[in-house]
Order: sequence, then structure tokens, then C-alpha cells
Amino acid sequence: MRYGFGIDVGGTTIKLAFLDEKGTMKDKWEIPTRTEEGGKNVLPDIAAAVKAYMAKENLTNEQIIGIGIGVPGPISDEGIVNKCVNLGWDRVELHKELSALTGLNVKGGNDANVAALGECWLGGGQGAANLVMATLGTGVGGGIVVGGRIIAGFHGAGGEIGHFTVNPEEEEACGCGKHGCVEQYCSATGVVRLTRRYLAAHDTPSILRGTDYECKDVFAAAGKGDEAAKAVLEQVFELLGRFLANIACVTDPEVIVLGGGVSKAGQVLLDGVNKYYQKYAFHACRSTRITLATLGNDAGAYGAFKLALDEFGA
Amino acid sequence: MRYGFGIDVGGTTIKLAFLDEKGTMKDKWEIPTRTEEGGKNVLPDIAAAVKAYMAKENLTNEQIIGIGIGVPGPISDEGIVNKCVNLGWDRVELHKELSALTGLNVKGGNDANVAALGECWLGGGQGAANLVMATLGTGVGGGIVVGGRIIAGFHGAGGEIGHFTVNPEEEEACGCGKHGCVEQYCSATGVVRLTRRYLAAHDTPSILRGTDYECKDVFAAAGKGDEAAKAVLEQVFELLGRFLANIACVTDPEVIVLGGGVSKAGQVLLDGVNKYYQKYAFHACRSTRITLATLGNDAGAYGAFKLALDEFGA
Repeated sequence: MRYGFGIDVGGTTIKLAFLDEKGTMKDKWEIPTRTEEGGKNVLPDIAAAVKAYMAKENLTNEQIIGIGIGVPGPISDEGIVNKCVNLGWDRVELHKELSALTGLNVKGGNDANVAALGECWLGGGQGAANLVMATLGTGVGGGIVVGGRIIAGFHGAGGEIGHFTVNPEEEEACGCGKHGCVEQYCSATGVVRLTRRYLAAHDTPSILRGTDYECKDVFAAAGKGDEAAKAVLEQVFELLGRFLANIACVTDPEVIVLGGGVSKAGQVLLDGVNKYYQKYAFHACRSTRITLATLGNDAGAYGAFKLALDEFGA
Repeated sequence: MRYGFGIDVGGTTIKLAFLDEKGTMKDKWEIPTRTEEGGKNVLPDIAAAVKAYMAKENLTNEQIIGIGIGVPGPISDEGIVNKCVNLGWDRVELHKELSALTGLNVKGGNDANVAALGECWLGGGQGAANLVMATLGTGVGGGIVVGGRIIAGFHGAGGEIGHFTVNPEEEEACGCGKHGCVEQYCSATGVVRLTRRYLAAHDTPSILRGTDYECKDVFAAAGKGDEAAKAVLEQVFELLGRFLANIACVTDPEVIVLGGGVSKAGQVLLDGVNKYYQKYAFHACRSTRITLATLGNDAGAYGAFKLALDEFGA
């Protein structure tokens, strides 16, 4: 049996996992992300953690397939990261630098993309070779898998579906500077923003009025029959269903996986989205399965390891 | 040097081409598509044409890499066609049946997808491995190429971008039964439809009024400064630019190729589309090149041959 590391680098925490070649996670732990001084400690910290783990477990380099690593920004197939604001990085040659520090094979990918690969391998999309994942968190991220491989994109922007324009009439700007991105409506913050807007524009009574509500409170209120919350979520479902139907006519996935905080709403989200997906999908794509992510915060580590396994395994 | 056939099967005509492994087209000709009796003659007619050509040119099976073939409908990777209305086909095992008739390797694909592959290989997208092609003809078709390979899709609907919803408020139905598909606005018939609608809703004087105009006449009128035609095309450019920007954040292509009759408008189309593409594209994708198809009606034959070359060559 051979092994490898799956590493998910976030802006505050680096998640590390040690897995066997079948995808069984044997261990996982976290270290802080030191972003100061241009993030120059990030890779040395990772290398030190990997080497300490290998020493403790008496592992040799020959037993290790490689390190797979997800980073929060665009990265080329060759492992070149050009600016990664969340880590403080300017230009980093990820494969070369981490490989030099560890003596191990390294393969990197964008964090949202490797999470999609993880869900495709062992999560909500298990068994599918073609998948679209939409992560509905603070923002909206995504990843597209075709033939078991991530679509990284020419500029490293494959699967950047959070900035898909769903409402060209929008007047407020998205964080990206554009207007009407799906992230402005269907992220956790987007749901709250839409609710504020709805309550300001309507007199509908609502248990949310005057409270400091979050996304999950809007779902809870709708569950209790709150008309305003129900109306807001209907908008969210329609935008999401249309958005996913439009993506489906591009890559025609076998399964669409919804992850991130908003997906904790569960079946009510699936039912709502599916209703509008059916309305907007091209007939050949209507049977596409829409399902929930199952790996939670581990999706990135699983997917990162799978990236290394596909590149260096066998 | 080895050779192969690239075949583009349409509802009225079958285009055949004979090419060498470098992609030089040595010969091309057409035969009629006999769709009667469930299209049972289509494959035997193709086999007869191929065999007659090989006999005439004294070619042996060993000199032939294979036959690549594009068909106007969804087709699986294994060559299974489930209903192809334009050919009268119900279920056809394309690879198996045409291979049995010819003794040659056969690889099939959807016609719009193989045209995209052709443009990627030797046309407007030459040199790119990642491409999106939108064919703006009577309808809108498309093809997505990633890593030099067509995305066929789980249901054979990869690249069916003509049925991407760009206007959920639309009241008229698209041919597919949905409402607001890009095909309803940005195909040649869509441009005419929008013009009719514009002229009915506005008093703007126009040289098009009272004439039996086609899409090209609308472009010609706009070129002469006709305000109504200019307003209509501005709508078309905005819809197309937004549509392409949205697709770009899914697969992040290196180049976007516009083909089909509408693309004969040339630079004015590119400029108009690019203006709105810049407005709606995610910043990482803004440098994506938008260009015109160059292979015209031969794109399908080139791409079909490339499909066979990738599968059986080398």
C-alpha cells in the first residue's frame, strides 16, 4: 500500500490529511496559515508538517505517491500561482518549490476545483466522471469535472461560476466589480442581502424583521411558513435553478453537487432548485441528478490527494 | 503517410472528405442523405462512397487510420445514437455498424461538436487546446473543447449552448419548448424575429420596413446607419456578449470562435460582442480572444477526421 498527503490551504488555516491510495483518510490535522511577509512561511510550514509526520510514522519517500494541494486562487497546470491575495503570495512556483522542500511529487489545484474533485471521487458525486459542483458559502465557488479531471481553464478560472451573471439589471456591485453575479444572490450573504431588500420593499409581516438574521434563519423562517422568507427563497431557487440549467447545457454533467453553508438547508434546497432546473434545462439534461455534498470540510483534502494520485499514482 | 475520412452527415447532404494525417484535405465530395425508411440507407450509402473512393485511388485498409463522422444529434462516446430526427434514425450503433460495413475504424461525434474540434485544430482556434465555438446559423449550436478533446457530455448534450436561457421573461416559445433560449435572439432567424418585434414596437423610421429582410439585411442596414437596425443589433451583441462571458466562467477557454451565417457580419459582430463580453466577463477571463470561424462548411469534415485521428492515429 502507498500513501499520500492531501492539503487544503486556506487564508487562516491549512488542513492536512494523510490518506492511503484507496482514499481512506488515516489522519488529519491543521496548522495556522502564516500570511505575513508575502506568505513566505506557508510552504516551509507545510513541508515541516509533512516531514514531521513522516518521521513520526517512519515513512520513507518511496512509500509516498505525492502531495496534492489546493490553493485559494488561480493556478496553472504547471503549478504557477500568479498572485494569491489570501495567502499574501505574489508569484509562486508551487510544484517546484514544495517539491524542493520535501523531496516529494507535488500537484496543485484551485481549492474550489479540488473540492469538486473530492466530491466526485468519494462524495456526493461518487461514481460520476462528469460533475458540476457549486459551493454556496460566504461567496459562490465551483468546480467542473469532465472525464474525472478538473477543468482548470486557460487562465486558471475554470469553474469560477460565482461570477456568472444572472441579473444584468442589478445596480449593486459584486465584490468582483461586476453587477448581477450569482454570488450576490445565492451565497449565504446573498440570501441575507436579498432578504433585507425584500423586507425593505414590502410590508409583508415577517418574524425576521428587527432581528439580526443569518442565511439559516431565513430558511428556518420559511420552514415555519413565513411568507417573506418563502418569497425570498423562491427567488434564490429560481436563480440557482436557471444558473445550473445553463451550466448543464455547456458541459452536460451526470450530477450537480451543492455544497457550502447554504447547502445545509438540505432537501428544501434540492427541491426548490430542482423545480426551476426542470423549467430551464434543455430536455436532454433534465434527468441530471442534483445532490448535496457529503464530504464537508474534508472535500478539499480528498480532492487534493486525488489530484496527486491521478498525476503520480499507478 | 496515412489517411482517413472526415464525414459530416446533414439532413439533406452528406459531406465526405479524404485527408492525410497532417490534416491536408486531398478531396471532398457530397452525396444526398436518404432519410426515408428510418434512414436505413445512410450508413450503407456512406460505406459505398468510401469503398468506391478507395478502389478508385487504389487504397488499402492498412493505409487508412479511420473514419470520423459527425451526426446531427446526441451520440455517446461508444457511438450509440438514440434518435436522430434529421436522419430518420431511431437507435443506431454507429461505430459498430459503419465499421462492419467498411472494415475500417469509426469514431463519431455530434456535428456541432466536431465542427468546434475542426476549428480548434485548423481553423479560428488553431493552436488552442481550450475553445468554445458558437455557431450562429438558422439555430445556435456549439461545441466545447478542453485539452484538445470535445466535451460530449453525459447525455450527449455537451455544448448544446443554443438552449442556454438568456431571457427568462420571454413569452414566445423556442423550438425546444423552453422560453428565452439564446437561439431565439442570436441565430439568423432570431435576429429577424427581434427586428420584427422592434419595428412593431417602435416608430423609428427604418429602410427595413415593408421589405422581406433577412439577417444579413439587418446588418447591412445598421452599416448604413439605420437606427432601428442598430438598436436591434445592440440587443443581439449584449445578449451574445453576456452569454459568452457566462460560458467563459465555466470552462475558461483560450479562444471563443463564432461561426455560422451570422458570423459573416465579420468585424462588426466581433466588436459588438466583445464590448459586452468585456462588461460581463470575470476579470481573469477578459483577455480571452473572440474570433471568427475560418473553415466554413468544411469544419465538420476536418473535425470528424480529427476525432478519428485522436482515437486511432499514432
